[in-house]
Amino acid sequence: MNDCVFCLIVAGAAPATMVYSDDAVCAFLDIRPITRGHTLIVPKVHATELDDLDPDLGARVFRTGHRLARALRRSGLASDGANLILNDGTAAFQTVGHVHLHVVPRKHGDKLTFAKGFLLRRPHEPNSTAAAIRAGLTALDQSEAEGAQG
Amino acid sequence: MNDCVFCLIVAGAAPATMVYSDDAVCAFLDIRPITRGHTLIVPKVHATELDDLDPDLGARVFRTGHRLARALRRSGLASDGANLILNDGTAAFQTVGHVHLHVVPRKHGDKLTFAKGFLLRRPHEPNSTAAAIRAGLTALDQSEAEGAQG
Ligand SMILES: [Zn+2]
Ligand SMILES: [Zn+2]
Repeated sequence: MNDCVFCLIVAGAAPATMVYSDDAVCAFLDIRPITRGHTLIVPKVHATELDDLDPDLGARVFRTGHRLARALRRSGLASDGANLILNDGTAAFQTVGHVHLHVVPRKHGDKLTFAKGFLLRRPHEPNSTAAAIRAGLTALDQSEAEGAQG
Repeated sequence: MNDCVFCLIVAGAAPATMVYSDDAVCAFLDIRPITRGHTLIVPKVHATELDDLDPDLGARVFRTGHRLARALRRSGLASDGANLILNDGTAAFQTVGHVHLHVVPRKHGDKLTFAKGFLLRRPHEPNSTAAAIRAGLTALDQSEAEGAQG
């Protein structure tokens, strides 16, 4: 076991509020969210930077980000959009040395909240936030299943 | 033909400094770059937001971003990292209504240049910049071909 905090979270050896997990990636709340619902998606296999990350595994990370952005619009957080941000390398403000994609939900007219959140980065009720996001993912699954039938 | 500026670029009906193109996506220099080499990757089929974008096509966009970030490190721009940013929705600062992924090359110690570029957003020799990026993509292709042989 290395001392990478995201590898510890993947292994269940460090706490995190998980919103999604599959065989390749998992997604959990940022402990210092810019907005409510700010989530990080990480590959389960360690990769420090994009240069170390298998392209297929990278695609799984980004696909999950795309899916999460769509789920957030259908969640109780009722986002109107999101910023998807991957800072690759310490030169690009990467702070944890394990590739992670930020998904930051946004609402119309939230510029001041966003700016304040960017400075303060305080948690917002993580349990109810994660439950809302999981419900959004379920709503997306259901709408897709209905679409496939229709 | 709609009046979407990125659809016009895809169709060759509006100018752009192209760095990459395939059957699904293309990548061209941002005309208001934050740093030298700031590139946009777009799906060739119009999609306004992530909610309208086919997940497979989205994965092609993100895979190209991953590849471009790796190529920039091998290019004459000699980046040490990159910010990959997708602003989804006008609430999230999306300014052109056609999904686009920003890849912003970064160097160690460029924080002041980055901040200045964020405010000024002036072009930096687009032709030589695009040539450097294309050479980086070729270098990545070659290193992978050698890796596959080895
Ligand atoms: Zn790790
Ligand atoms: Zn378009």
